[in-house]
Amino acid sequence: MVGHAFMGAAHSQAWRTVNHAFDLSAQVEMTAVCGRDPERAAAAAERLGWADHLTDWRELIARDDIDVVDICTPGDSHAEIAIAALEAGKHVLCEKPLANSVAEARAMVAAAERAREAGIRSACGFNYRRVPAVALLHSLIASGRLGEIRHVRAVYLQDWLTDPDFPLTWRLRREYAGSGALGDIGAHIIDLALYLTGSQFSGVCGLTETFVRSRPLPHAEPGGLTARGSLAGEHGEVTVDDATLFLGRLDNGAVASFEATRFATGRKNALRLELNGSLGSAAFDLERLNELEFFDATQPGAEQGFRRILVTEADHPYIAAWWPPGHILGYEHSFTHQARDLVAAIAAGKDPQPSFVEALQVQLVLDAVERSARASTAWTQVPGAETPAAENTPEQV
Amino acid sequence: MVGHAFMGAAHSQAWRTVNHAFDLSAQVEMTAVCGRDPERAAAAAERLGWADHLTDWRELIARDDIDVVDICTPGDSHAEIAIAALEAGKHVLCEKPLANSVAEARAMVAAAERAREAGIRSACGFNYRRVPAVALLHSLIASGRLGEIRHVRAVYLQDWLTDPDFPLTWRLRREYAGSGALGDIGAHIIDLALYLTGSQFSGVCGLTETFVRSRPLPHAEPGGLTARGSLAGEHGEVTVDDATLFLGRLDNGAVASFEATRFATGRKNALRLELNGSLGSAAFDLERLNELEFFDATQPGAEQGFRRILVTEADHPYIAAWWPPGHILGYEHSFTHQARDLVAAIAAGKDPQPSFVEALQVQLVLDAVERSARASTAWTQVPGAETPAAENTPEQV
Amino acid sequence: MVGHAFMGAAHSQAWRTVNHAFDLSAQVEMTAVCGRDPERAAAAAERLGWADHLTDWRELIARDDIDVVDICTPGDSHAEIAIAALEAGKHVLCEKPLANSVAEARAMVAAAERAREAGIRSACGFNYRRVPAVALLHSLIASGRLGEIRHVRAVYLQDWLTDPDFPLTWRLRREYAGSGALGDIGAHIIDLALYLTGSQFSGVCGLTETFVRSRPLPHAEPGGLTARGSLAGEHGEVTVDDATLFLGRLDNGAVASFEATRFATGRKNALRLELNGSLGSAAFDLERLNELEFFDATQPGAEQGFRRILVTEADHPYIAAWWPPGHILGYEHSFTHQARDLVAAIAAGKDPQPSFVEALQVQLVLDAVERSARASTAWTQVPGAETPAAENTPEQV
Amino acid sequence: MVGHAFMGAAHSQAWRTVNHAFDLSAQVEMTAVCGRDPERAAAAAERLGWADHLTDWRELIARDDIDVVDICTPGDSHAEIAIAALEAGKHVLCEKPLANSVAEARAMVAAAERAREAGIRSACGFNYRRVPAVALLHSLIASGRLGEIRHVRAVYLQDWLTDPDFPLTWRLRREYAGSGALGDIGAHIIDLALYLTGSQFSGVCGLTETFVRSRPLPHAEPGGLTARGSLAGEHGEVTVDDATLFLGRLDNGAVASFEATRFATGRKNALRLELNGSLGSAAFDLERLNELEFFDATQPGAEQGFRRILVTEADHPYIAAWWPPGHILGYEHSFTHQARDLVAAIAAGKDPQPSFVEALQVQLVLDAVERSARASTAWTQVPGAETPAAENTPEQV
Repeated sequence: MVGHAFMGAAHSQAWRTVNHAFDLSAQVEMTAVCGRDPERAAAAAERLGWADHLTDWRELIARDDIDVVDICTPGDSHAEIAIAALEAGKHVLCEKPLANSVAEARAMVAAAERAREAGIRSACGFNYRRVPAVALLHSLIASGRLGEIRHVRAVYLQDWLTDPDFPLTWRLRREYAGSGALGDIGAHIIDLALYLTGSQFSGVCGLTETFVRSRPLPHAEPGGLTARGSLAGEHGEVTVDDATLFLGRLDNGAVASFEATRFATGRKNALRLELNGSLGSAAFDLERLNELEFFDATQPGAEQGFRRILVTEADHPYIAAWWPPGHILGYEHSFTHQARDLVAAIAAGKDPQPSFVEALQVQLVLDAVERSARASTAWTQVPGAETPAAENTPEQV
Repeated sequence: MVGHAFMGAAHSQAWRTVNHAFDLSAQVEMTAVCGRDPERAAAAAERLGWADHLTDWRELIARDDIDVVDICTPGDSHAEIAIAALEAGKHVLCEKPLANSVAEARAMVAAAERAREAGIRSACGFNYRRVPAVALLHSLIASGRLGEIRHVRAVYLQDWLTDPDFPLTWRLRREYAGSGALGDIGAHIIDLALYLTGSQFSGVCGLTETFVRSRPLPHAEPGGLTARGSLAGEHGEVTVDDATLFLGRLDNGAVASFEATRFATGRKNALRLELNGSLGSAAFDLERLNELEFFDATQPGAEQGFRRILVTEADHPYIAAWWPPGHILGYEHSFTHQARDLVAAIAAGKDPQPSFVEALQVQLVLDAVERSARASTAWTQVPGAETPAAENTPEQV
Repeated sequence: MVGHAFMGAAHSQAWRTVNHAFDLSAQVEMTAVCGRDPERAAAAAERLGWADHLTDWRELIARDDIDVVDICTPGDSHAEIAIAALEAGKHVLCEKPLANSVAEARAMVAAAERAREAGIRSACGFNYRRVPAVALLHSLIASGRLGEIRHVRAVYLQDWLTDPDFPLTWRLRREYAGSGALGDIGAHIIDLALYLTGSQFSGVCGLTETFVRSRPLPHAEPGGLTARGSLAGEHGEVTVDDATLFLGRLDNGAVASFEATRFATGRKNALRLELNGSLGSAAFDLERLNELEFFDATQPGAEQGFRRILVTEADHPYIAAWWPPGHILGYEHSFTHQARDLVAAIAAGKDPQPSFVEALQVQLVLDAVERSARASTAWTQVPGAETPAAENTPEQV
Repeated sequence: MVGHAFMGAAHSQAWRTVNHAFDLSAQVEMTAVCGRDPERAAAAAERLGWADHLTDWRELIARDDIDVVDICTPGDSHAEIAIAALEAGKHVLCEKPLANSVAEARAMVAAAERAREAGIRSACGFNYRRVPAVALLHSLIASGRLGEIRHVRAVYLQDWLTDPDFPLTWRLRREYAGSGALGDIGAHIIDLALYLTGSQFSGVCGLTETFVRSRPLPHAEPGGLTARGSLAGEHGEVTVDDATLFLGRLDNGAVASFEATRFATGRKNALRLELNGSLGSAAFDLERLNELEFFDATQPGAEQGFRRILVTEADHPYIAAWWPPGHILGYEHSFTHQARDLVAAIAAGKDPQPSFVEALQVQLVLDAVERSARASTAWTQVPGAETPAAENTPEQV
């Protein structure tokens, strides 16, 4: 694993847990973690349960006792690490968004396609696909229970930037993060829209806003590989979006509305999603991630209503590995499920999902939104990823 | 109408509205309102829309231009007024609880039975039966959708007595109100349990509590006939229960839990009801009275969930008279629907519901709970009302 | 009153009720209702409680015993009737949206301004301003409790057009309705955004969609003045939007997202509104119109949360006229409150709200959204109404 | 650890995780698991992450390399194992309910008191105390935010027995489980009532019901030490309660209502708790365990409401160890927190909570409820545990 901040901790919990929860033909060994600062990397290895620690990811990739490289660094290093790892014959799990630019993402896709011919697998860490309620929603839609989708309505609302004294971390600087709320959390709702509808965006229009344009520089960068050395001065410019809103059209005829913001006071992690179809609707809220709201318009009229499915039954996706009905799961389980699906796919010689191609498609939407925002919300077409979709059936519980 | 305080206002709104909302073969005329104080009765007549006003209910009953007497006074006067009205050949709607004692209630039932032979109708004002969501729940249960009922769980939570300086109104004095939370709001949940399950209590055990035992005397009694003249001194004893809790068993094998309190801080009018059956469950909350939660255990397992039915569709009870779907109704509509059902029944020569017999059954439960509470929660059998049930089909939208 | 369909029925309920709920120095008399078809107008007069009925609104306006004209017709007739009524010296309440075009709206504003000099008042029927929870939110914002507003997020979701066999009523034809979801329900959320923030839109971008483009012609037009004679053929073209989505910026720096649709399966009347400010947030849902969600970011951190205020307390707007805490109000009460505010303003010689100028501002937004949609979501500036704001303090409970 | 079924799996997840989430001065080593069947014990050891496995708990207790014994067996073996382990100088964590009888519980308390003099610690696994929202509620109450508590209202609703073909597992047999819903899930809400109010029950009255009295015998017993050998015949008698309801009074003057059932169709794990005090109220639902509803009656009247605190902030109990705000925790985290508190207490030489004395107090309530149920709901006093309370300050995040 490269990087050991927030994402690194979440991934580590998943790697530690996956074989205890699921029957898998492969056994995960947590070989080594890589971080720029040796002391912090050592501490992370001990805390997070990695046998070894390194400060140079190139050494990590070079090791023979490593089969999978898990990239948990900021977006600006994804392409370099991922391509090198793939070329070194390592399976790769790369955090989202796949890259900081479409060009990088295309290069990563090309590397993944080459590696794939050698049986090397790659996937991007859109972990919310593995929330059981989301996976259940996917299967409901895939089996036609919502009918023809007309509306996709998604927001991802957080509020951790409302304090103007919150420091200028790497996530607020374009050179490291690529974009702000758009790429960090907007990418999730774009991916879910693509995943759930099985459709693509034909076009978008968007606008971005940065409410607080100058912030105090951090005394020291938190966590792992994200440290960038000392920063002079007291304040620095925020170079990414605090909030991005966009509208879109999907190939299936649906119209869509999206919003990603870090300024929604009181909303902590409100990824809220609603789809309205000709036969039904569904709604999901990540703050209540064990629940799916489902409206079945084929029920008798007087009995219709949004039902709250508590997605904790043994016949719900992933749940048989866990606890009895009603005993809820948490955020981290999405990573354990992601680990399970990745390991199962690698062991079975199949492509895990979402592929780099799928992640590129998200990147193309992010890029189109940014171009539209720069062009006064002009309608902006989203190009296709122009790469053959994976031929294997996805491997998922 | 006799009495013009809170209930009088709610009933007046219903009488004013019923013919504008529903097609009825009879037209309501608001002939006269009766209140003890002539000035306040006059003001009430003008405000509430009554053509005339009186201070003696006996005069009201004696009038030829009155067909229906609506009794909205405290419970201690129900029996006398209702029996006199029935004997005078007036149809009677009497507020709940029917009376302050079982003996009074039995006398009222006897009077109602005698009057019924002459085609005179009577009903008790358990208006929450007429909330569309409750009526829908009744029809779901009646058609077997919940299967065999195993649990009834009902609370009626208010908090208007948490302020120790709230004055000693008539509702806090046994001689006027009969009991406190038990008879005022507990009666509603008892009636709904009987109505919805179609069953009777076999026995109960209960306890009561009065948290604040002394309260300031009111400067003047509010509203209408409830005035009792001036009260000397500064504080008086609260002689009713602030809260009553009881358990029960129903003839259908269900176990039941009930609580009525005026000390549930933050709960304003939380009549909450849940029934669990072998095939399904349902839950209702009066603070969201347009919604019914329904769980259908016959749906496919992975799709089961409590669905929130927004009971505002044209094919829901009473709704066709009102607005398009999603345009919610309020508390007062329950009275308009009660008025509609009463007028329709009288016009059709049928017995309205709930009859005095049904209301007596509630009274018998109230009495058994009080007796149990006095006997250290001893199990106390609830006698049957021992009166033939109405033979007519209820007249309801 | 001109028109007696859905809006006419809702307004009539308000006129019938307002003097019974509120102490007003003026007494409402329901003099006459006007409808194109004499038989239906007569039936409406009887059902809705009007003393007389007419078929020509010009006659109505000419009557000496009428002081106020309430216009409940489709949008294409608003301008003509309103201007004539104002010129005849009648106070005017005109249903929303004010008109079908900006030009009509400007003419109406001009007429209103002229009439105002003679003490003649005018208002537009954006009744949701009078929902107590909305009025409470307005006062919270006005007193600074949300701080600087950064986000406005509003949807108005209905689903009554998901059935492709729903007929081609006047609301689906541009010549009568002006637009579809946008003007009918989108106008409400635009007005609320303006009302609550006290700000104006600087620009918008939008897109519209018509999912079902051809519908069966109705056998007969429903309700009152909306009848347009018989329609030949079996199907006709839907000439308005089924759904409109748009983004906007407000003068106060907020970014905003709006969606109005009649294709949100399962959402019946979901006007949902959220505002995020620097000090707090608030959320509202018309399907639970007695509740306001309020997040106060100035509370101690560990105790912060969205609180559900049950807006039924005596010190909440309009509530003192009604029932005790927790006894909820319905949709129709917003019209009663609107009637109360209008009558109070007229009686006091003040301007009621929202004025035609405010309604013109909504019209300008509607127009800008449509122009943007026709120009491929191009950013479109919203011109100011360029008319002096009312100088009187609004008259509101 | 003794026993490796549901509870064993949950505890194992906690032991595996606790040192990765929390900084503790002691490091947990998962030495050995004990189960009756050697093959299943071996499989459990591998799956759950234990280094060794045994079939005789006496051998486990005899090992020198074990400091803590975690008892996850059915209640009938708790006393024997716990007493032996304490006498062998092992710290003990014992699953709830502490025992199957008051006599056993008293013996365990005596053993714990003796061991405590030698610095040996003991605790009972009422894990829900460690749900962050519950711990937050405890601190709110302890700091007086609810004022004087008047009402405790708790239910624990499950529905896994509604299927009459669900087999007769050990949990449905008195000889193994002691009681049914009462001891299994009722014990949790009793403990929470004691924990949160800091008060004791003075008396109770209760009733029990077994809806399905005969069930098919299981083909084989599931999981670990709970296997009891083969069972002859096809059906067997259910000898425990399916549901128990009881009322109570607390020493602090509160009245309380409790219900535990496995027949609440659609309710999967609905531990719902509400407390009403003179200054505020709070409500909790285990199916939404990251949320606490808090009503603060000291706020300005027009702004009061139940606020949904999303208990995921760094300054909430236990949360700093986990994820950013809004990233929710699951059921299993309560066990990790329990493990953390236990290890921290042992390492600090302090008594962990809840002590066996506290667990005995729960047992005394369970016993009183059963005695009342057998005596026709007669009011039954709950004796005090008559043992000195722990003098140490509880060790908790």
